[in-house]
Amino acid sequence: MRALVLGIDGYLGWPTAMRFSAAGHEVVGVDNLLRRRLHEERGTDSLVPLVALEERVAAWRELTGRHIEARIGDLTDPDFTARVVSDARPDVIVHYAEQPSAPFSMLDQQRCVFTQVNNVVGTLNVLFAMRDHAPAAHLVKLGTMGEYGTPNIDIEEGFIDIEHNGRRDRLPYPKQPGSFYHLSKVHDSHNCMFASRTWRLPVTELNQGIVYGIRTDETALDDRLATRFDYDECFGTVLNRFCVQAVAGHRLTVYGEGGQTRGYLNIRDTLNCVMLSALNPPAPGDYRVFNQFTERFGVLELAERVARVAGGLGLPVEVDHIPNPRIERQQHYYHARHTALLELGLRPALLTDEVLAGMIDAVSRHRDRIDAGRMLPRIQWDPRDLRPPD
Amino acid sequence: MRALVLGIDGYLGWPTAMRFSAAGHEVVGVDNLLRRRLHEERGTDSLVPLVALEERVAAWRELTGRHIEARIGDLTDPDFTARVVSDARPDVIVHYAEQPSAPFSMLDQQRCVFTQVNNVVGTLNVLFAMRDHAPAAHLVKLGTMGEYGTPNIDIEEGFIDIEHNGRRDRLPYPKQPGSFYHLSKVHDSHNCMFASRTWRLPVTELNQGIVYGIRTDETALDDRLATRFDYDECFGTVLNRFCVQAVAGHRLTVYGEGGQTRGYLNIRDTLNCVMLSALNPPAPGDYRVFNQFTERFGVLELAERVARVAGGLGLPVEVDHIPNPRIERQQHYYHARHTALLELGLRPALLTDEVLAGMIDAVSRHRDRIDAGRMLPRIQWDPRDLRPPD
Repeated sequence: MRALVLGIDGYLGWPTAMRFSAAGHEVVGVDNLLRRRLHEERGTDSLVPLVALEERVAAWRELTGRHIEARIGDLTDPDFTARVVSDARPDVIVHYAEQPSAPFSMLDQQRCVFTQVNNVVGTLNVLFAMRDHAPAAHLVKLGTMGEYGTPNIDIEEGFIDIEHNGRRDRLPYPKQPGSFYHLSKVHDSHNCMFASRTWRLPVTELNQGIVYGIRTDETALDDRLATRFDYDECFGTVLNRFCVQAVAGHRLTVYGEGGQTRGYLNIRDTLNCVMLSALNPPAPGDYRVFNQFTERFGVLELAERVARVAGGLGLPVEVDHIPNPRIERQQHYYHARHTALLELGLRPALLTDEVLAGMIDAVSRHRDRIDAGRMLPRIQWDPRDLRPPD
Repeated sequence: MRALVLGIDGYLGWPTAMRFSAAGHEVVGVDNLLRRRLHEERGTDSLVPLVALEERVAAWRELTGRHIEARIGDLTDPDFTARVVSDARPDVIVHYAEQPSAPFSMLDQQRCVFTQVNNVVGTLNVLFAMRDHAPAAHLVKLGTMGEYGTPNIDIEEGFIDIEHNGRRDRLPYPKQPGSFYHLSKVHDSHNCMFASRTWRLPVTELNQGIVYGIRTDETALDDRLATRFDYDECFGTVLNRFCVQAVAGHRLTVYGEGGQTRGYLNIRDTLNCVMLSALNPPAPGDYRVFNQFTERFGVLELAERVARVAGGLGLPVEVDHIPNPRIERQQHYYHARHTALLELGLRPALLTDEVLAGMIDAVSRHRDRIDAGRMLPRIQWDPRDLRPPD
């Protein structure tokens, strides 16, 4: 299989590229190094030190004898995107290449517009390039469970059967995204669904939960093959951040009541899900959606688990409730189907106390790199909430 | 009431501005003259000759003594948009300012991206400008019935009550748009819904059907106050085009079977709907959706009516079926609720034979300006359909 990995320098893109390469597939990757640039702009960094993309590729070759081709360029450039797709002649395109932070997208008008234009235009260019140069390739597009929001009914996998006034149809599941970033993914979903139908492209959308962990079979081989571990307010995810706070002796910062419930998965399962999707492509013109997570947790529940496991490791830590910078339901129903990937053969790696202890241990190795000032949320969903009343 | 009309130089924007002005409201308008530029680029033009925007404003002042302030600028420029909203201090913002053509958006990658960026970024900038400078203003955003597509169940007004696995919720109505243009409006809808909830902005979205006609109380006053009448494949709407074909002695070009059923309304009703919405604003943070049409017709049914009425006027014309350039259902269920505006007091001006005869008569006045070569569709939803099989 020839795989084209868009966003190959990212948290998931790099481990995905190595997994496909390790399995004997030809891998071409693309990145514009956006995440590294945005970290520089924000004055933040991955807790785990990263080597440059070309060093990653060289180390992979040195250790495995396998070649990954990495190209630098921006998918919002239509000529670059067309050339990459045309050159790579991919069987599968795994598309992670987007601005991935909700808080970043809520920072101001400029970051909001950048996020939506970057994500939507990049994806449109990929769809046009597929139409013109690789119409049989299978697009595996990373979406997010956050596209659905928190409806008061069960969340289905992309589509829902509705009976209404005596008639029935199977329709796209209604979306209620909670940030300009999540909105950009909803826009992508609608664009991909349309392009799949109109141009008969095979598309799998993976609506992913919140990923935790950094250890995969391949990242474990050598420090130069590590993937990033973000814990700052923009690019960090909640479980990673709690582990860092525990190691730093910082109270675990639960936003508001902490009843916000979401789907979660181990980075190992991300790789397995993407591979299972790639190995089982849909038919031309089929657009399918898989919900990609393995367990659900409330934020407070997670914080309490981290505190308990950290305490057992001699890292006593308290849980704190801080004002929620987001505008979201803090107590709500949450039940989302996630059976399609299990039916394809996924065997989940669940969040055991051992896994948590392993994460805390990995963080401890880099405790000298922790910047405790970067963990508190400063970006407000409604910045006027900070102003004194008129 | 202070009204800010975005897209004041357009087919509906100019008549709307005059209507608000005639009713005694203060009107400021904005336009970047995009439609005129795109017509030049395509080598097409309005059948009805138009004077420049500043001449329209001057004629309105000369004839009525009323002042409309028109500013030239682009809503994708955030500073311009913020300044306009801040200066105008509007009670209501009527937002028509978008690239409005589905075929144009399907022409190629560049036009697709232009359409989505132009429409989405312009609307985002309006939302940010409202948040920062006019949070109490009421946004009346023009959407389209085309956002819904053609589901096999009744279309509701923006939201649908769903009972699923024993639980209930009221959720955004699922969208199945049929072009990159229609997709841009769906993206706008999601962005507006989110901004309304997050920043407590009052928003009315008007999902409008296909508008026909050019005669309003104000456009009828003087030729310089006329609004545009497009009949080309990009910017023309179907009923306008049939009237031009009838006058030109050209066969009426029905796309495919002609079973495509849509909602329609007279331009007079557009103005009444927008005014009713403006006079009855929602509460802060309320996002409501009205379906804005008065009747539904199939395309073949419309062609046959035009042929019959034209025949009665001594213009015998035949109906032709040509290959459908669009990818859409040609026979389908279509039943859409449109009661909210009726409940606010709308008294529809229906499409009688007299109205049709009036439209054909208006077209006849400009028959020397008809460019018959511009009425056939050349833009294919899937351009590969034109290629010989491999």
